[in-house]
Amino acid sequence: MHQTHPVSSDENISKQSFIDRYKAVRARTVDICSKLKAEDMVVQPIEDVSPPKWHLAHSTWFFETFLLSAFSENYKVFDTDFGYLFNSYYNTIGERVLRANRGNLSRPITSVIMRYRAYVDSCLTEFLENTNPTQEQIEIIELGLQHEMQHQELLLTDIKYILGMNPTFPRYDVNSLVDTAVENETGFLSIAEGVYPIGYEGQGFCFDNELGCHKVYIHDFQIAKSLVTFNEYIEFIEAGGYQDFKHWHAEGWDWVKKNQILSPMHMYKVNGEWMRYSLSGFQKVVGEEVLVHVNYYEAAAFATWKGMRLPTEFEWEVAADNLKWGKAWEWTNSAYLPYPKFNIAEGAIGEYNGKFMVNQMVLRGASGATFPGHSRKSYRNFFHPHLQWQFSGIRLAK
Amino acid sequence: MHQTHPVSSDENISKQSFIDRYKAVRARTVDICSKLKAEDMVVQPIEDVSPPKWHLAHSTWFFETFLLSAFSENYKVFDTDFGYLFNSYYNTIGERVLRANRGNLSRPITSVIMRYRAYVDSCLTEFLENTNPTQEQIEIIELGLQHEMQHQELLLTDIKYILGMNPTFPRYDVNSLVDTAVENETGFLSIAEGVYPIGYEGQGFCFDNELGCHKVYIHDFQIAKSLVTFNEYIEFIEAGGYQDFKHWHAEGWDWVKKNQILSPMHMYKVNGEWMRYSLSGFQKVVGEEVLVHVNYYEAAAFATWKGMRLPTEFEWEVAADNLKWGKAWEWTNSAYLPYPKFNIAEGAIGEYNGKFMVNQMVLRGASGATFPGHSRKSYRNFFHPHLQWQFSGIRLAK
Amino acid sequence: MHQTHPVSSDENISKQSFIDRYKAVRARTVDICSKLKAEDMVVQPIEDVSPPKWHLAHSTWFFETFLLSAFSENYKVFDTDFGYLFNSYYNTIGERVLRANRGNLSRPITSVIMRYRAYVDSCLTEFLENTNPTQEQIEIIELGLQHEMQHQELLLTDIKYILGMNPTFPRYDVNSLVDTAVENETGFLSIAEGVYPIGYEGQGFCFDNELGCHKVYIHDFQIAKSLVTFNEYIEFIEAGGYQDFKHWHAEGWDWVKKNQILSPMHMYKVNGEWMRYSLSGFQKVVGEEVLVHVNYYEAAAFATWKGMRLPTEFEWEVAADNLKWGKAWEWTNSAYLPYPKFNIAEGAIGEYNGKFMVNQMVLRGASGATFPGHSRKSYRNFFHPHLQWQFSGIRLAK
Amino acid sequence: MHQTHPVSSDENISKQSFIDRYKAVRARTVDICSKLKAEDMVVQPIEDVSPPKWHLAHSTWFFETFLLSAFSENYKVFDTDFGYLFNSYYNTIGERVLRANRGNLSRPITSVIMRYRAYVDSCLTEFLENTNPTQEQIEIIELGLQHEMQHQELLLTDIKYILGMNPTFPRYDVNSLVDTAVENETGFLSIAEGVYPIGYEGQGFCFDNELGCHKVYIHDFQIAKSLVTFNEYIEFIEAGGYQDFKHWHAEGWDWVKKNQILSPMHMYKVNGEWMRYSLSGFQKVVGEEVLVHVNYYEAAAFATWKGMRLPTEFEWEVAADNLKWGKAWEWTNSAYLPYPKFNIAEGAIGEYNGKFMVNQMVLRGASGATFPGHSRKSYRNFFHPHLQWQFSGIRLAK
Repeated sequence: MHQTHPVSSDENISKQSFIDRYKAVRARTVDICSKLKAEDMVVQPIEDVSPPKWHLAHSTWFFETFLLSAFSENYKVFDTDFGYLFNSYYNTIGERVLRANRGNLSRPITSVIMRYRAYVDSCLTEFLENTNPTQEQIEIIELGLQHEMQHQELLLTDIKYILGMNPTFPRYDVNSLVDTAVENETGFLSIAEGVYPIGYEGQGFCFDNELGCHKVYIHDFQIAKSLVTFNEYIEFIEAGGYQDFKHWHAEGWDWVKKNQILSPMHMYKVNGEWMRYSLSGFQKVVGEEVLVHVNYYEAAAFATWKGMRLPTEFEWEVAADNLKWGKAWEWTNSAYLPYPKFNIAEGAIGEYNGKFMVNQMVLRGASGATFPGHSRKSYRNFFHPHLQWQFSGIRLAK
Repeated sequence: MHQTHPVSSDENISKQSFIDRYKAVRARTVDICSKLKAEDMVVQPIEDVSPPKWHLAHSTWFFETFLLSAFSENYKVFDTDFGYLFNSYYNTIGERVLRANRGNLSRPITSVIMRYRAYVDSCLTEFLENTNPTQEQIEIIELGLQHEMQHQELLLTDIKYILGMNPTFPRYDVNSLVDTAVENETGFLSIAEGVYPIGYEGQGFCFDNELGCHKVYIHDFQIAKSLVTFNEYIEFIEAGGYQDFKHWHAEGWDWVKKNQILSPMHMYKVNGEWMRYSLSGFQKVVGEEVLVHVNYYEAAAFATWKGMRLPTEFEWEVAADNLKWGKAWEWTNSAYLPYPKFNIAEGAIGEYNGKFMVNQMVLRGASGATFPGHSRKSYRNFFHPHLQWQFSGIRLAK
Repeated sequence: MHQTHPVSSDENISKQSFIDRYKAVRARTVDICSKLKAEDMVVQPIEDVSPPKWHLAHSTWFFETFLLSAFSENYKVFDTDFGYLFNSYYNTIGERVLRANRGNLSRPITSVIMRYRAYVDSCLTEFLENTNPTQEQIEIIELGLQHEMQHQELLLTDIKYILGMNPTFPRYDVNSLVDTAVENETGFLSIAEGVYPIGYEGQGFCFDNELGCHKVYIHDFQIAKSLVTFNEYIEFIEAGGYQDFKHWHAEGWDWVKKNQILSPMHMYKVNGEWMRYSLSGFQKVVGEEVLVHVNYYEAAAFATWKGMRLPTEFEWEVAADNLKWGKAWEWTNSAYLPYPKFNIAEGAIGEYNGKFMVNQMVLRGASGATFPGHSRKSYRNFFHPHLQWQFSGIRLAK
Repeated sequence: MHQTHPVSSDENISKQSFIDRYKAVRARTVDICSKLKAEDMVVQPIEDVSPPKWHLAHSTWFFETFLLSAFSENYKVFDTDFGYLFNSYYNTIGERVLRANRGNLSRPITSVIMRYRAYVDSCLTEFLENTNPTQEQIEIIELGLQHEMQHQELLLTDIKYILGMNPTFPRYDVNSLVDTAVENETGFLSIAEGVYPIGYEGQGFCFDNELGCHKVYIHDFQIAKSLVTFNEYIEFIEAGGYQDFKHWHAEGWDWVKKNQILSPMHMYKVNGEWMRYSLSGFQKVVGEEVLVHVNYYEAAAFATWKGMRLPTEFEWEVAADNLKWGKAWEWTNSAYLPYPKFNIAEGAIGEYNGKFMVNQMVLRGASGATFPGHSRKSYRNFFHPHLQWQFSGIRLAK
């Protein structure tokens, strides 16, 4: 989930409420980590997962680099090594630690990173209070906040992976509802053929991959009102879904065979009973709840087995206003590609757009880990088709 | 290039002319191999390349399995091992030799495979002569011929790889014009915004991935009248195109760095001069000729460097009637995905459609290696974005 | 460094002094870790390195499993998961976490492991105080202490790797002298041809790979009185030693090329000056100090370049009484193989002897990280020839 | 099996008989290949195996490079590319094709290589006839012949692998007895403790790794009069030998698990019956015959299961005169290391001695594929412990 560029910011926001919002967003990242032990902050069991302390530092580095170092005259960088250590993929900015190596770095320790956060927050707050921030500066801060919200979701995903792969299955938070949702509706919504507008049109923030509002011709289709539940998916498993190549993409089937996959991530059959690891602990599967942690191959195979298909991202967007979405990121059958007239922003901030537009599939909606309010129907999330570690589920279409 | 299913066949074809056509297509495969040595028939330097004798056998196996074994009552299979050895990826049919292992099999030798071809051709011709073939049987044979034409193109591509990676650069055919084409036109064609029909509508043969003729909304665009030439691409190289990440997709840049890529496949800078291996031998690059052997990453990076982009497959199809195409497969910026209402055929023949529709990009047009007549504007070729070994080039859009 | 089985223990030791010794050895492990941060306890940058908290737990698990669970009637295992988590390679005992996966386990956290240590220490002390331990039990405890001393050395080695690979080069202990030693002597010692006894003959503890005292015929040889210094080795580097295949074993040369090795581990040339990371910090190389962190390939290549060779482990043992050794583990030119009449002990404790006797080279001596007193001239250390992360150096012979 | 350097040559050989011998040895290589098809000459299914046409060329290149180019004034190299293509591992001589890449080179084809052989043979014969060859030249030719005999054995081994891995199991030669031998003797030979001479002492040819005749102290031991048979080894398999880690070296056990090994190479259990591929075809195992195609791990595991061990290479050499050896290469428990006073020859010819002396185990004896007469009790063959593709068997000791 790497997108960027604010196109507008609500001009009615007063400076103080903007500062308050800054503080609130930043505080939530720390709050997510407050349930962890120091040891949890360091590990990186797979390359896709980043250590929690890296998220804490990287989201801070964003504000330091793109706002304070760029615009605050007397700003003194907290630690010159941090540019190297906490840059993620901005080649424009300079060398960076190989992603796979993040979990090997025990230093700087979390308490130092917390001092880094406090220092940057204090400098940035002071900067806002003492200056008249330009529209560009406001936009960069807004982008940094959106970026931080994305990392909050990744943090929850990564924490689930870190604790869930531990053979002792430690709980994150016994009261967490992040990965627990129930669906009640049944049936399909029908949409009529025609030309529809796609993309963001409002006045608020959006990423540039949503821009270039344009027309798409859509044929008649039907889309499910509910996401697929554990019960429905277990039917697929028990019917031998993971043993029959004919439901699968060729690459999906290779993935199943090579990794000996028998179920979605975090699901286990123990003594004949389906269990799963959720952030609230290791527990029995509740069949009515929304399935999460399937990858695109699994989503597509399930749909094929049902004699249906996944919706395209355009169908999803057209239907969205009439769907109760937000319980899990929803795999679409659309590849992540640029919209017509897509433009890449100048400089480092623009770097991470078009460059990810190959070999990834679009997910629409939001999950229980998404920052409240950090979602809209034009939002385009994207991941490689083999990845299960997100809170990702299935909505059927036909 | 793996597609299938004829939807119609010209009913006016007389049986004899159909038999003649069968013989002509089959003969061309043998003809392509006639310029090779026995040793050339065996090797498989990379997994994507198949040994020429495998192509000879596999295309024959198709007719044996799907027609003779299925419909000819007294047909005796030539060799029961061949089903195992020469199946490519039809899981429905049974076990198969791992693709990467094809080049390790010295037996059966080419002369045995040539006997296999003769045997199947004779049985099939006899079958056609002595029976009244059904429409289904005609369609299967037609599909087998289309399949064989695809393998003829792959044969030329694979032969070029096999000889071109040999440090002695042996010639395939001094008179070959397969990978040599000149472009004369300049400028761009403009197409107006609107709803356009996409997909195959005729009465002849097509693959099922072209079916489901449907409407697409297309915005104003311009498309180049000519393909990019060696001269234009060398400009990109000499300007440091392979050294600057900002033109590249993130995955493309990783590919460049990991493989230390400095130019398209089969191009070499020797003593300050640009050389290339073509099927007619190792020779100086002629700058005005059409560039071939770039992958999608290179095509996209070049377009970005030019401040333009690649066309989508829909834009290409809409413009095709006004373009002189056919000199090299053209990378589009469309991912290979199903058309609306795409249906998978029953049984093994239907197996290889939807299952490749992930992580590949569409190429449109045709190359100098394409069977004359085996091309049409709705034809959807597709390959993984990192592959250079095809006769693939670049057409710009904006 | 994995060896086992005490053959004797000093029977004159009083029980109380044995308990005191137990406490002292155990305390040193905790002391070594006391200079680390919680975050340092978790990481495993390469498979050979184990996280410090794993060492703390594994050495405790040894006493719990082989003594308390085996002999103490009412002993209640601290946590049943720990058998799975902290077994290293004892297949007899059951499943274990894959070695490469140790660094992915943030739980149990260090404070829990410290409670585990306290619990086991208290139970074991109580057991000793309240019973009359048998000779077998004494031997197991003695073995556990020897095992713990080995892990203390590994801890220092692993800590050096963990901190030394961090781009910020954090210090372990500014006063550490573990990897700093000076050599003063020059010249060679001459030993005359003859039959010599090899192996352990005393009454104290030894590992079973030292047993089977036997005769070896040794020809005339000379052995250096000092280990190779940084200055001497830098001469080799500056003379192009890493660029000329002819000094190297074929596998050593492959290792150099594949990993682009230019110097021993923890050495760097910065602005024309040789620097190294030592446990006391990143600093200029002191040329007179003993070279450490070469692997067998480097040791052998250096010796070849000097026109000499490495001693065999038998030559080393014969000369040992006349050498001042102990400043760095010394690569010999002997493969790690069983002595004549070598016997494997019964059960799990015997498991880790013969099974490592292939593809490893013997090191003799001791290093600055070796527990004081935990060394003797018959001690056989062993590692794979490509490993640099030990405190390993070079003594020449001819 | 890569050794070198003749130390002496029988001076009583007349020039003509030397020429005749040259022709006879060279002819046998061609004869071994005469039973192959052109396609068999090219393939390289694993890196350890070389294509037969590569052996034909490489053994010729040796004479061209080290004799003709070095000493024959007007000699014109057959093809300048061949130095690059057919050098094996002589870094001194220059660039070479990566070993793993040999099977990708279809050119030069076999008939060209046969011309190369004829050309070199004719030039070399002429050289011998028209000059008075020096002792050094005689020694180089002798070394070339010994080298060729080694490659003849490798050819048979590689041919067996190439045909044996083909699912159709083609025969090499229905009358071949290369991998078929019977043992009749039983019981053990006892050898008394003492100092014994080891190494080559005669006047004939030997490799330099056999030189440096020296003394070794050997303790009492017993060595089996016969090699292990298929029947004996099948007992080990049926007793679960491949399922119980405790017989195995740790690395051997990893190899078993990772590769899911259930039996030696070329052995298969089909419908409850033990079959094997031999050069005379796919056939039932004859239990009384000598087991071949085990690696060192298997040999050692079998010995451990029997409560015995493998002999050292020194024990083997001391016992050899009283053993009927030569039916299969015999794994010893000695690592391949230099003898005392081992010296590396100058220049390229000396290059391939010491450089292989790490991580390999010594085999003694000879196999049915060894050139008649190309064996002696001091001969040291060596391979990596995981390799099964040689004609290698087991002799027990205790």
